[in-house]
Amino acid sequence: MIHSDGFRALDRQECLRLLAKMPVGRVVYTRQALPAVLPVNFSLDTDSAVVLCTSAASDLVRAIDGVVVAFEADDFQAERRAGWSVVVTGRAAVVTDPAEHERLLRTGPRSWMPMHDGVFIRIEAEMVTGRELTGVPG
Amino acid sequence: MIHSDGFRALDRQECLRLLAKMPVGRVVYTRQALPAVLPVNFSLDTDSAVVLCTSAASDLVRAIDGVVVAFEADDFQAERRAGWSVVVTGRAAVVTDPAEHERLLRTGPRSWMPMHDGVFIRIEAEMVTGRELTGVPG
Repeated sequence: MIHSDGFRALDRQECLRLLAKMPVGRVVYTRQALPAVLPVNFSLDTDSAVVLCTSAASDLVRAIDGVVVAFEADDFQAERRAGWSVVVTGRAAVVTDPAEHERLLRTGPRSWMPMHDGVFIRIEAEMVTGRELTGVPG
Repeated sequence: MIHSDGFRALDRQECLRLLAKMPVGRVVYTRQALPAVLPVNFSLDTDSAVVLCTSAASDLVRAIDGVVVAFEADDFQAERRAGWSVVVTGRAAVVTDPAEHERLLRTGPRSWMPMHDGVFIRIEAEMVTGRELTGVPG
């Protein structure tokens, strides 16, 4: 569907395919009653959950473990005035099962930041929405 | 200051200088009690407020006019495993003063989406934080 304002809604499969291409996305959550956002490395798990790796002692873990968050990734090209964005909304939870943790050590995301006490956080892909801006004349 | 986890905190001036380079950032807010995020074109006003242009009838206007939101922009390079992100947190408000609206029509941001009923929204730069990931060996 192309909207009159120049963007096209993406279906869930398109969204997940685009998400899988990006190394960095942004966790959107609430911290001390204020809206907060943090770029992080991520990967998609086999059930399409977003998986992050962060320090066990981080503010992020305290803020999002067990609560619903949004996760966004996008890719825009200024010269074409075009691009896409995808948002996953769902419950975030630290992976506590040792077998799951081991599996994600092999298959999960690698953080660009050195990490001594890394934990994995899964964000369930309960709601996946996206849109593509197809480029409009200046 | 360089943190042990590989990033450096940016001061307010560095943050604003980096922000000014980017054509797209992300508004972070709450919609129907859920965290929400939307990429938008923006510019910085002379007092460092973030200025967006959106449709007067948009969900975004209804959700953020008069409330505190976050605004994020970043730039990461996968090959260097490096980049920066900046977050502005402050009150958002639709520009209702006709003279201010006229001024922003000349100097404000241009949306990549065609806009028939555009209004400007200012986000006051009450809190500006940023960090730079300086690149670490793989």
